[in-house]
Amino acid sequence: MQNKLIAEFIGTSWLVIGGCGAAIFAAGIPNVGIGFLGVALAFGLTVLTMAYAIGHISGCHLNPAVTLGLWAGGRFSAKEILPYIVAQCLGAIFGAAVLYFIYTGNNSDIGGFAANGYGAHSPEGYSMISAFITEFVMTFMFLIIIMGATHSKAPKYLGGLAIGLGLTLIHLISIPITNTSVNPARSLSQAVFVGDWAIAQLWLFWVAPILGAIVAGFVYKMLSPEDE
Amino acid sequence: MQNKLIAEFIGTSWLVIGGCGAAIFAAGIPNVGIGFLGVALAFGLTVLTMAYAIGHISGCHLNPAVTLGLWAGGRFSAKEILPYIVAQCLGAIFGAAVLYFIYTGNNSDIGGFAANGYGAHSPEGYSMISAFITEFVMTFMFLIIIMGATHSKAPKYLGGLAIGLGLTLIHLISIPITNTSVNPARSLSQAVFVGDWAIAQLWLFWVAPILGAIVAGFVYKMLSPEDE
Amino acid sequence: MQNKLIAEFIGTSWLVIGGCGAAIFAAGIPNVGIGFLGVALAFGLTVLTMAYAIGHISGCHLNPAVTLGLWAGGRFSAKEILPYIVAQCLGAIFGAAVLYFIYTGNNSDIGGFAANGYGAHSPEGYSMISAFITEFVMTFMFLIIIMGATHSKAPKYLGGLAIGLGLTLIHLISIPITNTSVNPARSLSQAVFVGDWAIAQLWLFWVAPILGAIVAGFVYKMLSPEDE
Amino acid sequence: MQNKLIAEFIGTSWLVIGGCGAAIFAAGIPNVGIGFLGVALAFGLTVLTMAYAIGHISGCHLNPAVTLGLWAGGRFSAKEILPYIVAQCLGAIFGAAVLYFIYTGNNSDIGGFAANGYGAHSPEGYSMISAFITEFVMTFMFLIIIMGATHSKAPKYLGGLAIGLGLTLIHLISIPITNTSVNPARSLSQAVFVGDWAIAQLWLFWVAPILGAIVAGFVYKMLSPEDE
Repeated sequence: MQNKLIAEFIGTSWLVIGGCGAAIFAAGIPNVGIGFLGVALAFGLTVLTMAYAIGHISGCHLNPAVTLGLWAGGRFSAKEILPYIVAQCLGAIFGAAVLYFIYTGNNSDIGGFAANGYGAHSPEGYSMISAFITEFVMTFMFLIIIMGATHSKAPKYLGGLAIGLGLTLIHLISIPITNTSVNPARSLSQAVFVGDWAIAQLWLFWVAPILGAIVAGFVYKMLSPEDE
Repeated sequence: MQNKLIAEFIGTSWLVIGGCGAAIFAAGIPNVGIGFLGVALAFGLTVLTMAYAIGHISGCHLNPAVTLGLWAGGRFSAKEILPYIVAQCLGAIFGAAVLYFIYTGNNSDIGGFAANGYGAHSPEGYSMISAFITEFVMTFMFLIIIMGATHSKAPKYLGGLAIGLGLTLIHLISIPITNTSVNPARSLSQAVFVGDWAIAQLWLFWVAPILGAIVAGFVYKMLSPEDE
Repeated sequence: MQNKLIAEFIGTSWLVIGGCGAAIFAAGIPNVGIGFLGVALAFGLTVLTMAYAIGHISGCHLNPAVTLGLWAGGRFSAKEILPYIVAQCLGAIFGAAVLYFIYTGNNSDIGGFAANGYGAHSPEGYSMISAFITEFVMTFMFLIIIMGATHSKAPKYLGGLAIGLGLTLIHLISIPITNTSVNPARSLSQAVFVGDWAIAQLWLFWVAPILGAIVAGFVYKMLSPEDE
Repeated sequence: MQNKLIAEFIGTSWLVIGGCGAAIFAAGIPNVGIGFLGVALAFGLTVLTMAYAIGHISGCHLNPAVTLGLWAGGRFSAKEILPYIVAQCLGAIFGAAVLYFIYTGNNSDIGGFAANGYGAHSPEGYSMISAFITEFVMTFMFLIIIMGATHSKAPKYLGGLAIGLGLTLIHLISIPITNTSVNPARSLSQAVFVGDWAIAQLWLFWVAPILGAIVAGFVYKMLSPEDE
């Protein structure tokens, strides 16, 4: 159990360092910056690389919504939920601290960091309702992909690829709307350092992803049960 | 049968939410927008992710032209064609409705949405003839890729990757010409919300892709029959 | 044999339609164009998709330099070289004709199409010597990748992925230098429609890639013989 | 042993030609240049392609930090370390010489080439401390990915994909900070041609990556021992 939690800690810190780090350091540089496309790729590749690196240790959730969705889908035991989520949140905050330390060596004002937001804090000004639906639908589909790609009838070994690139796809769609969460630990980690509005809006990035994930777990289990 | 249709419904809605959504929300943002490259990647990843998520349930067609091409190629039974196409069209329209709802929370005018068009409605002004040839050739090659990558002699398990990235490639070439359809359900879903010219031009995005797909099915079957 | 040649014809036409087509139609559009990165991806994906679609039919060379390099490496029989190269050249020219027809529906002047060049016709003005070394080194490494990724000791089934993405990599490096050939058939197909300087410079894009490929075939065979 | 060293020489020269070459030739071209995203992809694809091409010959390290990290992780014998590192450094310098020759055919001033730097020579002006932490963390995670993806319990054959894309991810994050090294041989190869400040700052790009790699080797061995 301890090694699983260390793996989740390392993996979730990498998700934040890689995904949020690419956004903070490299997205907006004029002419050569990586833009939202590069950020989308970075988030996906954090999951893809960790899937092959720690998948055999902890299952590589890196995300409280994924842990809860897999529980709802009958793939994860209830008693491991809390320790997994704690390890993920601590790992994410540690990752954000690394980013904070590197970044403030160059610039003392972190601005919005890579926090998630809606309304005035949506990158393109989308409303709270649009943000909620977006986070719900994106996390719903993320879990459909995860439940399917790790199903016993799915092609073996390619799950990590499909799931990582699925997260890239989700970012390609929704960065302009909410800066894309689908991951409460990732949102928490940025809000801790930004404070203020990012804390005030944090509820949405816990409630909507977790609801979407749990509903998807139930739906997929009905659609294609493992013990079929 | 019911689960297959639900899978096609979910998968085709994801194709529209992911592909058209990336185009609508994220393509044109100055400096950090994902551009046609990001849209091409998004469309491909909708198919790649669904291939691993629902491939073992419905075969993951997500496209009436694919369903008809696979029938022509001897890989799909005639009696399932109509229910598949209905499920795909309904799923696509549902996906477009989700996009419409999210988008109009921010902006009341959807403009051209992500509709396909030719002549004055081609992104770069290509003629109807150029558009027809493009859609025919692109869908022809899409089916060649699909027929080949799912052939019993092809490497197992990598079909979803090759087919998804094939759709990305098709978009890299042809977004400037027709906004890229190769999928009648995807075109329908946008035309329903745009109305007007998008409805008037919709015929081309049913006829050309379906013709290209059916011809490819026959060609590939002759080139490399399964019962060889 | 006939089916192999049809497969090479279709595959090489797709390489030109996909790679050169992406360059011609989509690379330079302001703000949302796919740029050299998108063109690099398109070329690679033509090979990746064809590897899984026709690899089991013809081996998916799509390139006279590849055919000759594989012969030098002891992987291809001498008596099939000429028919393969003829099929590739005809397929490439057919692909270029499709592009020509689509493009001139919108614009009567094809300009440089996607022809390869050096000196005044190098995208960034590189000299003939730089161009020759670049084409030699790039095709040398392309064949090292092909010989290695299809070696009996290499991971099965992932060859098409490594080879396709290898071609993407080659384009990421060398589009600014020669517009990237590494493929005499691809260069021929564009020169036929551009004429003039593109014909006059065509020799380099036959000699350098073929030399690089043949040397690589011999080197790899020594480095890791199949009958080891 | 000799063939292993030739393979490491060729592979590391390709890493420099491909990764640094993409940066030097193609990154900054206005409108169509590949930017940091293209450079990140190029570096990753050099490793991905070589993994499938020479992985079965030498293990495809291409990097002194990787060689030392694998030794720390119990995956590589001490007596091969020195010859591997020498072959990697010579290959990297040879690759840089090829780039130098091609580039100076067009422009006599190589400027900063693709050298790594901190402070005034960091692309975005990050401090020495930020640079050190970044290189340490990035190489630490690179080795976690390598140790994991080549672990006997990890999915077979996909290691090259995960490791290559992991290097892409690392560049997406850290090009703005240090121009991304995580590879002492790559840094050496550029410093040899740039001289001056690039030589003076070279120590950091040997010390930080090697430390990060060795620590990661030990950590991963504890987390998931092979003889478990």
